[in-house]
Amino acid sequence: MRKEKDKIKIIALGGLNEIGKNITAIEFKNEIIIIDCGLKFPDEEMFGIDVVIPDVSYLVKNIEKVKGIFLTHGHEDHIGALPYVLKELNVPVYGTKLTLGILESKLKEHGLLSKVTLNCVKPKDIIKLDIMSVEFIRTSHSIADSTAIAVHTSMGVILHTGDFKIDYTPIDGQLADFARFAELGKRGVLAMLADSTNVERSGYTMSESTVGVTFKEIFRKAQGRIIVATFASNVHRIQQIIQAAEENGRKVAVSGRSMENIIAVAMEYGYLKFDEGTMISIDAVNRYPNEKLTIITTGSQGEPMSALTRMAASEHKKVNIVEGDMVVISASPIPGNEKLVSKVINQLFKKGAEVIYEALADVHVSGHACQEELKLMHTLVKPKFFIPVHGEYRHLKQHSELAAKLGMPKSNILIADNGEVIELTRNSIRKNGTVVSGQIFVDGLGVGDVGNIVLRDRKHLSQDGILTVVVTIEKQSGNVMAGPDIISRGFVYVRESEDLIEEAREIVKKALKECEEKHITEWAAIKSNIKDVLRMFLYEKTKRKPMILPIIMEV
Amino acid sequence: MRKEKDKIKIIALGGLNEIGKNITAIEFKNEIIIIDCGLKFPDEEMFGIDVVIPDVSYLVKNIEKVKGIFLTHGHEDHIGALPYVLKELNVPVYGTKLTLGILESKLKEHGLLSKVTLNCVKPKDIIKLDIMSVEFIRTSHSIADSTAIAVHTSMGVILHTGDFKIDYTPIDGQLADFARFAELGKRGVLAMLADSTNVERSGYTMSESTVGVTFKEIFRKAQGRIIVATFASNVHRIQQIIQAAEENGRKVAVSGRSMENIIAVAMEYGYLKFDEGTMISIDAVNRYPNEKLTIITTGSQGEPMSALTRMAASEHKKVNIVEGDMVVISASPIPGNEKLVSKVINQLFKKGAEVIYEALADVHVSGHACQEELKLMHTLVKPKFFIPVHGEYRHLKQHSELAAKLGMPKSNILIADNGEVIELTRNSIRKNGTVVSGQIFVDGLGVGDVGNIVLRDRKHLSQDGILTVVVTIEKQSGNVMAGPDIISRGFVYVRESEDLIEEAREIVKKALKECEEKHITEWAAIKSNIKDVLRMFLYEKTKRKPMILPIIMEV
Repeated sequence: MRKEKDKIKIIALGGLNEIGKNITAIEFKNEIIIIDCGLKFPDEEMFGIDVVIPDVSYLVKNIEKVKGIFLTHGHEDHIGALPYVLKELNVPVYGTKLTLGILESKLKEHGLLSKVTLNCVKPKDIIKLDIMSVEFIRTSHSIADSTAIAVHTSMGVILHTGDFKIDYTPIDGQLADFARFAELGKRGVLAMLADSTNVERSGYTMSESTVGVTFKEIFRKAQGRIIVATFASNVHRIQQIIQAAEENGRKVAVSGRSMENIIAVAMEYGYLKFDEGTMISIDAVNRYPNEKLTIITTGSQGEPMSALTRMAASEHKKVNIVEGDMVVISASPIPGNEKLVSKVINQLFKKGAEVIYEALADVHVSGHACQEELKLMHTLVKPKFFIPVHGEYRHLKQHSELAAKLGMPKSNILIADNGEVIELTRNSIRKNGTVVSGQIFVDGLGVGDVGNIVLRDRKHLSQDGILTVVVTIEKQSGNVMAGPDIISRGFVYVRESEDLIEEAREIVKKALKECEEKHITEWAAIKSNIKDVLRMFLYEKTKRKPMILPIIMEV
Repeated sequence: MRKEKDKIKIIALGGLNEIGKNITAIEFKNEIIIIDCGLKFPDEEMFGIDVVIPDVSYLVKNIEKVKGIFLTHGHEDHIGALPYVLKELNVPVYGTKLTLGILESKLKEHGLLSKVTLNCVKPKDIIKLDIMSVEFIRTSHSIADSTAIAVHTSMGVILHTGDFKIDYTPIDGQLADFARFAELGKRGVLAMLADSTNVERSGYTMSESTVGVTFKEIFRKAQGRIIVATFASNVHRIQQIIQAAEENGRKVAVSGRSMENIIAVAMEYGYLKFDEGTMISIDAVNRYPNEKLTIITTGSQGEPMSALTRMAASEHKKVNIVEGDMVVISASPIPGNEKLVSKVINQLFKKGAEVIYEALADVHVSGHACQEELKLMHTLVKPKFFIPVHGEYRHLKQHSELAAKLGMPKSNILIADNGEVIELTRNSIRKNGTVVSGQIFVDGLGVGDVGNIVLRDRKHLSQDGILTVVVTIEKQSGNVMAGPDIISRGFVYVRESEDLIEEAREIVKKALKECEEKHITEWAAIKSNIKDVLRMFLYEKTKRKPMILPIIMEV
C-alpha cells in the first residue's frame, strides 16, 4: 500500500468563508463521498443572477471514485445545487425521507427525477461502501429529519455536524441522538467539522417549542384573520401554527408555491399532524368568517414575488389584507433582506393590519447552535482535530477560538478555504494544495454562461447607463455616410439633456474628422478615439462614467 | 383677519415614511420656518445615485414667506441637502456652533460659503421673527450641540424634538434641558413632533458614557496598535477614544476625509479636549511603536472607499493591518450595510487583527430614544396633539400607539405623509390637501436629471444587460446596406455564446425581410418588429430579458 493512500483528504468545495453553497468531499484511498450540495443566493453585486452553485469540476474529473452524495437535511443551502450538479455528476443520493421528498419536487421541476437514484435512509442507518461507511445521526434543526454524518474509515471517524441546534423539547419528540455523539466521542473521533453560523451569539438558542407558546397567545387574542409567514421548510413551525389554529377552531389555508410544495410533501410523508377538515384550499377562504381562518404563507423575507408581498401590495388574487387582519412574520430577516421585509411591514400596517414580527414578540427562534450548544457538541464528540465550517471567516475564526478555549491545542484546529485540500492522518492535520473550486452563476437557463466580465458590465451599466455611438462609414473612401448617432439608456433623462447629447455628437464628429486627417483608418483606433473623447467630455460635464459603445457600420 | 390665517400648517417635505431626508415646514399667517434640511442615502434600487434630497418646490414658490432654516443638529440626514437646496432657497440658516461648523465645511466644498447667511445660536436662544419665535432647547444625541426646537405662535407652541435620547451622564456634561421641556409642558404645548427611530425597542438606550467603560477595558488589555472606526460626527465617541488613549500613553492619529474634517471643526470650536502632543499626523504613525498608537478612522459602515475598508484591503497608503492590531468597530451597521461591514470584518480577521464589534462587546450605543425615553418626553411635554416623525410607517404607527397608551386620545394623534398639509387650530388637527413633495436624485453633478425612467433603465440593464442591433438602410430603396450587427454587453459571455448571437442575427435578418415584403417602411414599426422577435427568441433560449436597442442608420 502506498503511503499517500493512508491520508484522508477533506475538501470543501463550498461553505467556507461564505454562508451557503455547502458541499464537502471526503476522499480516502480510491473513494470519495460528498456531504451536501447546496446553493447560495446571489450577493447584491451579482446583478441578474438567480442562484450560485459550487464548481464541482474536481468531482466530475474523479467521478469514478465518487460513491454518493449524502445529505444532512433539506434546506436550499444543502440540497439546492443538486438539480444542476446531478446533470454532470449522476451518483447515488442518500438522505432522510423529508430531505428526499423536498429534493424530489425540485428534480421533478428539472425533469431529472427518473434519471437519478435516491436512497432513503433513517437516522442510525450506516451505508457501507467499499472503504468508508457513512452513518446518519439525528440532530435538531429548523427543518425536520436533520442529521449529522459520521464517516467511518480505518484511520478514524470524521464527524460532520450538519446544521444543528440543541433542542430538548423538539416538536416531533425526536431528540438529537446525544448518546451516539457521546459514544463516538468516547471511542475517539479523528476530526469534527461543525456548523459555525451562530458562534457569535452567547448562550443558547431557544427551543422551537417556545415559538408555539407565543403563537398560542397570539391566536387566543386575535379577533380577525391570522396570516403567518414563515420559511416553507420549517415543518415544525408549520405544525405549531396548525395546532394553534385547531385549538382556536380555525381552518388553515396555504399560499405560496414553495409553501404548497413542501406542505404537500410533509403531509404525504406524515410530517404534519392535523385533524380532518382543518386544511382548506386557498380558494375556499372566502367561505369562512375571518375569525375562523389562518393562512400560512411564504414571504417572510419580503421576497418581491412571494405571497405575503403580493398580499401587502394588493396583488394577491385570493387574499386581500383588511383592517383587523393579524399578520405574523415568523422569521428573522436574513442579512441583506432587512429593507425588503421592512417595506412589507409598512405596507401591511398601512392597510390596517396588526403586524407582529421579531422585534415585537418571540415569533422566531434560530435553527443554529449558539456558543453554549457548540460547547456541548465539542465536549460530547471530543474530536482530535477540528475544522469549523458553514460561516464567513469571522465565524470560522471565532469557532476555532471557542474550541481552543475548551482545551483543544491550536495546532489541531484548522481554518481552511474552499478548494483547499486538508490532509488527515491519525496524528496530523495539514493543508496540501488546492483543487479547482469556485462559484458558478445560474441566470435563467444559463449555467455558467455569465462570468465576471458580464457581471462587471452589468454593474457598470447599473451605475451610469450606456451611450451607444453609431457611425456608418463608406468602405472605399472612409467617408462618414451617416451619423454619428448617439443613443443613451440609463444615463440622463433624454428630453432634459438634449443639449448635452448634441454637444457629445459634435465632439464625436470632431474626433472622426481628426481621425480622417491623421489617416487613422483602423476601426479599433477610431473606436478608442471616440471612447476617450466622449468619456472625458461626459465626466467633465456630469461627473459620471457611462459605458460607451462605439459601433462602426461599413457600406 | 381672515379665518384661514388662524391655522398653523405643518408640512413635512421629508422624514415621514422614510429614514432620512428630514425637513419640516411650519407655516403660520405669512411666515414659514423650516426645521432641518437633510439628505437620504439611496436605496439599493436607486442605481448610480449618490444622494437623495427633498423636493422643495413648495418652499421656493413661497420663498417670500420663508424666514429661515433652523437646524436641530449636524447629521447628514438633517443638514446634508442644504448645499443643494440653498442654491434655490437662499434664506438665513440658524444652528448651534458645531452644527454650523460642519455645515460650513460642506458649503465650502460647494463654493457656497460666502453666499449664505449662517446665524450661530446657543441652546435657550429664541429667534424672534415677525409672527413666530423659534427657541432652541438642548437635547442629547450621538452628536454634540443637538437641540429640539420650540416654535412659539399666538395659537400655541409646536415642539419638534429633533433626534434625541435621554442621557443622564453625557460626555460633555451638558444635560438635556429637562426643565424647559417640563416648563413648556406645564404651560401647554399645542403639538409635538417627535423622533420615532427607536420606538420598536423597549427599555432605555444606554448612556454614551457606557461605551467609554468598554473602551477603557479594551485599551488596558491591548498589546498592539488600536484602530477604532466610528461615525465621524460622533464627537463624544471620539472624545472617549482620545481619553482612553491618553490614559494609556497612546498617541492618536486620524484617517478618512470626513473624520479629518469634523475633528478639525470640533477641535477649532473646542468640542474636543486633549493634551498637547496627543494628536499626531497620520504621516507620523510609523515613528511610534504600535503599542503607543491609536488610529481613529472612518469606515464603520464598510463603505467601499472609506479608510478602514482600504486598510482591510491593503489599499491604504499609510496604514497596513498587521497581526496584533486591535480593530474596534464602534457602530451598528445601518440596515442594508450588514454585508459590507461583514466583508471588512472578515478581511481584518484574515490579516490577523483582533476585531471587536457590536456582536462581541458594548462598543456602541444608539443616539435615539427607546420606548421608556419616549414616554418621558411625552410625559414632560404633555402635548395636546401629536405627530410622530422620523421613521417608516411601522415606526410612526407604533409611536402613535405608544402615545395612545400614555392616555392621549387617538383623535389627537395624526400619522401623515410627506407633502400632506396638517392644519392645526387650538382645538383641532386635520389633514387638508397636499403640496408638491418627493425625492430629487443627485448623481454626480446632476441634480434631478436622473428620474424614474433612467432608474428603471439602469435596473433593467443591471439584470440582463443590453443587446444593440444596428442596421444601415438605403434611404431610397429601403434596402439593407449593412448589418444587422448585434453587440451585447452584460448579457452573456460573448465567446461562449457566438452561436446564440449568430442565431439572433438570422432572426433579425428574417424580420427585416418580412418588413420589406410587407412594405413596412416606418422606422418605428421596423424597430418594434426587431424588438419583438428578438425578445421572444432570447427569452425562449435563455429565460432572460435583456434590453433590446434597435438602431437604424440611413444612407
